Amino acid sequence: MNQALPNAPSGATDQPAKPPLLAFLEQAHARYRDDFSGAVANYIPELNKADPARFGVAIATIDGHVYEVGDSAYPFTIQSVSKAFVFGLALELLGADHVESFVGVEPSGEAFNSIRLNANNQPFNPMVNAGAIACSGLIYAARRDEAFELIRSILGRCAGRDLDVDESVYQSETATGDRNRAIGWMLRNYGIVKDNVDAVLDVYFRQCAILVSARDLAVMAATLANGGVNPLTGDPVLSPLAVARVLSVMTSSGMYDYAGEWVYRVGMPAKSGVGGGIIAALPSQIGLGTYSPLLDEHGNSARGLRLCEALSAHFDLHVLNRANDVRTCIVADYDVGRLQRRGRQPHEQKLLEEQASTIRIMELTGTLAFSNVDYIARRLLAHDTGLFTVLDLRRVPLITTAAAKMLADLFDSLSSSGTRPVLAGIERDSRHFRQLQAFLTDSGAIRTFSLLDEAIEWAEDQVIFRYGGFSQITDVPLAEQELLKGLAPEDIADLEVLCETRSYHPGERIIACGDEADSVFFLQRGMVSVKLAEGVRLATLVPGTAFGELALIGGPRSADVFADNAVLCRRVPLDTFDDFRMRRPFAAEIIVRNLAQLLAHRLLQANTKIDLLSAN
Amino acid sequence: MNQALPNAPSGATDQPAKPPLLAFLEQAHARYRDDFSGAVANYIPELNKADPARFGVAIATIDGHVYEVGDSAYPFTIQSVSKAFVFGLALELLGADHVESFVGVEPSGEAFNSIRLNANNQPFNPMVNAGAIACSGLIYAARRDEAFELIRSILGRCAGRDLDVDESVYQSETATGDRNRAIGWMLRNYGIVKDNVDAVLDVYFRQCAILVSARDLAVMAATLANGGVNPLTGDPVLSPLAVARVLSVMTSSGMYDYAGEWVYRVGMPAKSGVGGGIIAALPSQIGLGTYSPLLDEHGNSARGLRLCEALSAHFDLHVLNRANDVRTCIVADYDVGRLQRRGRQPHEQKLLEEQASTIRIMELTGTLAFSNVDYIARRLLAHDTGLFTVLDLRRVPLITTAAAKMLADLFDSLSSSGTRPVLAGIERDSRHFRQLQAFLTDSGAIRTFSLLDEAIEWAEDQVIFRYGGFSQITDVPLAEQELLKGLAPEDIADLEVLCETRSYHPGERIIACGDEADSVFFLQRGMVSVKLAEGVRLATLVPGTAFGELALIGGPRSADVFADNAVLCRRVPLDTFDDFRMRRPFAAEIIVRNLAQLLAHRLLQANTKIDLLSAN
Repeated sequence: MNQALPNAPSGATDQPAKPPLLAFLEQAHARYRDDFSGAVANYIPELNKADPARFGVAIATIDGHVYEVGDSAYPFTIQSVSKAFVFGLALELLGADHVESFVGVEPSGEAFNSIRLNANNQPFNPMVNAGAIACSGLIYAARRDEAFELIRSILGRCAGRDLDVDESVYQSETATGDRNRAIGWMLRNYGIVKDNVDAVLDVYFRQCAILVSARDLAVMAATLANGGVNPLTGDPVLSPLAVARVLSVMTSSGMYDYAGEWVYRVGMPAKSGVGGGIIAALPSQIGLGTYSPLLDEHGNSARGLRLCEALSAHFDLHVLNRANDVRTCIVADYDVGRLQRRGRQPHEQKLLEEQASTIRIMELTGTLAFSNVDYIARRLLAHDTGLFTVLDLRRVPLITTAAAKMLADLFDSLSSSGTRPVLAGIERDSRHFRQLQAFLTDSGAIRTFSLLDEAIEWAEDQVIFRYGGFSQITDVPLAEQELLKGLAPEDIADLEVLCETRSYHPGERIIACGDEADSVFFLQRGMVSVKLAEGVRLATLVPGTAFGELALIGGPRSADVFADNAVLCRRVPLDTFDDFRMRRPFAAEIIVRNLAQLLAHRLLQANTKIDLLSAN
Repeated sequence: MNQALPNAPSGATDQPAKPPLLAFLEQAHARYRDDFSGAVANYIPELNKADPARFGVAIATIDGHVYEVGDSAYPFTIQSVSKAFVFGLALELLGADHVESFVGVEPSGEAFNSIRLNANNQPFNPMVNAGAIACSGLIYAARRDEAFELIRSILGRCAGRDLDVDESVYQSETATGDRNRAIGWMLRNYGIVKDNVDAVLDVYFRQCAILVSARDLAVMAATLANGGVNPLTGDPVLSPLAVARVLSVMTSSGMYDYAGEWVYRVGMPAKSGVGGGIIAALPSQIGLGTYSPLLDEHGNSARGLRLCEALSAHFDLHVLNRANDVRTCIVADYDVGRLQRRGRQPHEQKLLEEQASTIRIMELTGTLAFSNVDYIARRLLAHDTGLFTVLDLRRVPLITTAAAKMLADLFDSLSSSGTRPVLAGIERDSRHFRQLQAFLTDSGAIRTFSLLDEAIEWAEDQVIFRYGGFSQITDVPLAEQELLKGLAPEDIADLEVLCETRSYHPGERIIACGDEADSVFFLQRGMVSVKLAEGVRLATLVPGTAFGELALIGGPRSADVFADNAVLCRRVPLDTFDDFRMRRPFAAEIIVRNLAQLLAHRLLQANTKIDLLSAN
C-alpha cells in the first residue's frame, strides 16, 4: 500500500489564500460598484450632496473580526438606522411595559413618514418616524437635557468608538423637518409626547445626523447579533431581552413596505436609513454594514440591498435556515467503573468497581441550548441516574437562558429523586453558575468543582464512605509496595538497607519538574499530588505507590510532586539501586517488569479515555 | 483534604425524575385546562359542534422524540394550518418563480378571508384564503384530479402517517363556502385561477377538512423545523429551500393581524387554523402542535396561544435569541511533529520532525455553519498552511449549505496557493462529500480518507517522498531490533538460537485477539497492522519493531495483527525466553527496561492526544 505514491501537490500558483467571506465581499463589491441605479435622497437638501459613486461594506463577526471592502471608513449620517438602537435604549431605560404602552409592534403598511396612527392612536411600530420620535420623546421625558448625549453614547458603545454629529445635516434636517414636526404635534395630541415637542424633535434630528461609517454599522449590527455585547470591546451595551425585541421589530418592520419581501429573500433582521446605510444582524453569527447613497423606490440603499441579497443567497444565511444535531453536545457518557483517577487501596477499588453505576459522568461540549439540554435530560433519564450525576462543563463556552432554565429544572428533579447533581469545569462565582443559580430551587444541593477529576474523586469518596469502605490507612512498608510485588523477603531486606527515610510537611514540594531524576520514592504514609507546572493535577497517590519511578528507566522528572498532608517516604538513590541491580539481577528484572505492567495499565486507561473523547 | 467528608445525598423523596420539557408541558396544560375564554368557530356549522373542553399539546424534537400531554391524540380538522404545507408543495412542484408570479409575500393587514387583492391584483400572501386557494389552483392546474391526493399524501408524510378527511366537515364547508367561492371567482377574474373554479375549491375544501391530532401537528411542525425531513421517519418531504420560504411567510403572515405581536412575543414561525390547531416551528430545535377549539378574536386558538407564549417565555425560545461561540468547533489544531501514527525508520522520523510544520491538522466538532467555517478559515490562514492541511470531520454530524460553500471556496483557495487540502473522517460517496463537491472547482484536488490516521500517514508519506526520505527497507536482524538495544553480542547470539523463523503472506493473520500470549515476535521484513476486532487499525509496524511484546510482562493478546505484505518474523516462545531469563538475567532486565521505555513513550503520546482532545 506504500508502493505507488501519488505525486506531491501540483498546479499551485502560490497566490496567498484568502478567507472566503472576504473574497466574496470583494467580488460582490466589484460587481455592484458600477451600478448607478437609484437616486440620492432629496428630501433633505444636505443629503442630496452625497457622492453617488461611494460604496463601502463591512462585516463584523461575533468573535470580533472585521472584514472591510471599498469606502468602509467613509462617514455619512445614520438617519433611520438609529431608530433600532434608540428603541433598544428606551426599552433598557424605561422597561418594555412602559415603552409598549406608547408604541405598537405591528407593521404599518404605510410609508415611513406617514402621520397615521393605529387603532389605539399609537404609532404602528418604532421603525416608522412616528414611533421613533415617540421613543426619543420617552427618553427625553426621563433624561431631559441629557437625552441626546445618552443616545450618542449608547450608539458609540455599540460602534466601539465615540461618534460625532454632522452639524450641517442637523441644520438642514431642522430647517426642513416640517413633516416630522407635524408628527411630533400629533403625538402630543394623543399624549404620546408629553413634553416640549421642539426639544424632543431636536433630540430626534440630532440622533439622525450622527456620523457613522459602514464599518461602524457592521460593529453596531454585530453588537445586536451578539446579544447586546459589542464583540470588539466586550462592552455589554444592551440586554439580550432588549436585543430580541429590537431584532423582532427590525424583522417585521425594518425595511418599510419591503419588509415581507426582505424576510422572504434575505431573512436577516435589518434596518435602512435614507443616508444610504443598511445594517443587517444574523444572530450569533455576523453583523453587516453597507453604505451607498443611491436609494431605490422604497428608500433602501440600492447597492446595499443587492449586496445583502447576494450574500444571503450565496451563503444561505436566512435566519430560519438553521441546522443542528442536538446529539453532538455529549462528548462522553460513562460510569466510574471504566476510569478511576486516584490510586486507591485494593478494597476501595473493589468497592468502586461493584458500585460503578452509582456515579454517572457526562462530558458536554459546545453551546448548551434548549434542545441540547432536552436531549441530555432524556439520555440521562433513560438509565438509572445512580447516586451522583457529574456533568463536565469544561468545554461549554455558553449556556443559553433556555438551557440554564432547563438544566435548573433537571437538577431540581434529579435532587428530589435521590440523585445528587455534581458540576465540573465550573467555578461557583462564574457567570455560568450565577445564571443557573437564578433558576435553582436549592443551589446548595449542587456541588461544583473546577476539575472533572476532583468531581469524580469527591463522588467516589462519597460512595466509599456510604458503603463503609474507608478504613484507617496505616503505613505501607516496602514489602507491600506495588512496584516491589513478587520480590523475595531477602531482596526486600537488601533494598531496605539502601533506602533513606524522608518526611515532608503538607504542601511541601518533594520533586520539581526538570530536576535530575536521581532517585525513586516509595510512599509509606500520607498522600501526594502529581502536578504539571501550570498547577493542573495529574494524579493523587496513596501509600503503597511509587513516584519518580520513571528514573528506573532513564525517564525525566516531567512533573512536580507535592505532599498533600504529612508524608513519609522511602527514597532509593539511583546509583545505590545500580549496585542492587548488579547484586540481584532477578529482583531488578521483577521491579522493572512491575513498572512495565503499571505503564501498560496506564496506557490502557489513556486509550480508553481517548476512545471516550473521540466517540462521536 | 480527605478527612472531613460531606454527607451522602439527603432530602431525596425518590420521585422519578422527569424531562424538564415534559414537566413544563404538564404544568402549562393544567394551568390553562380550566380556562374557557374564547368561542368555538361558528362560520361552519359542523365546527361549532366541537367540545370546548378538549385541550391537547405535543412537541416533537428534531432527534425524533415526541412529548404529549392531554388530548394530543384527539382528531380535528386542520383548516388553515394546511396552507403552510400546500404553499410548500406548490413551491416544490412548480418552482418558486412560478408560484411567486401569482402570489405575493407581504402581510395584508386584512382579515384572513378578505377578498381584497394587492396593488398587482394578486393575493397578498399564501396564508390568507385568497393566496391559499391560488396555491391549490396552481397544483390543480398541474395535476388535475390527482391534486387532492397529492396534497393529502404530502401532509401525511409530514405527519408520518396516512391522514383521513372528515366527510361531514367537508360537506359543511362545501355547503356554506360562499365567501371562498367569491374569492375563487375573483381570482379567476384576474387570471390567478385559470381552471374550473369549482374543482379548485373542492380541492381547497377537502384539504381544510383533513383530520389531524396535536401530535400530528407537532410532527408536521418538526418536519419544517428539521429542514423538510420528517425527524421520526427520516423522509425528506420538502426541500430546505421550500421550507425556508414557508417559514418566512409563516413569520410575516402566519397569525393574521397578530403576526407582528406574535414575532415580538413568541418569536417562532407559526400557523393557526379555525379548527383549533396551531403549529409552531423553531428551526433545528422543535415542532409544536396544540389543539383547543376555543378561538380568540383574531381566530387563533386561545389556549394554544397562551401555551405558546408561556413556553417561549419560560424557555426563552425566540428564534432571534441565538447564542453560539464559533471557537468551539476546533477540538485540536496541531502539526504532525507532535504525534506520529506509524513506526518509522529513524531517518524518516528525523525528516518528519524537521518538516513537521508542512502538515497541519485540525480536528473539528459539531455542526459546521457559516460562521464556524469563517473562523476556521481565519485560524488556518493566520499561519503558514504548509504543504498539507488535514481537516478531520469525524465528529461533524452536519455541514450547512453556507458552510459547504465556504469550505469549497477555502479549499479552492488553498489549492491555488500550494497547499493540498486533505479530508479525514469522510467517505467519498457520503452526503457530506457530495455536498462539498457541488461547490468545488476541482474535487480531484482533494484527498479523502475514512480515518484521520490514514490521512496523516498519507501526508507523511508524501512529505518523506518529496524530501527524498524513502530508502530501500532491508531486513532488520535481531541485533538491530528496538526492544533488544543495549544487549551484548553474546546475548543476541544466545537469543538467536531460541528464535523460530516464520513467514506470512499478505493479509494473513499473525496474532488473533484473545489467543494465549505465549510468544514475542520480532519483525524482520515487511509490514504488519495491529487492528481491533471491529477492524479499526491501531498501528502499522515496520521492520525492527516487536509485537505481541506485552507477553513478556504477562499481558494478554488484546488485538489482531495482520501481515500487510510478505512478512518475515523471528518468534520467541515465552517458555524458551524464561530459560534465557534464568541464564542471562542482566540481558532480560535490559529487554524489560526497553519495553518499559517504549510503554512510557506511548503513554506520553496518548496523554498528548488527550490534551489535544480536551483543549477547549
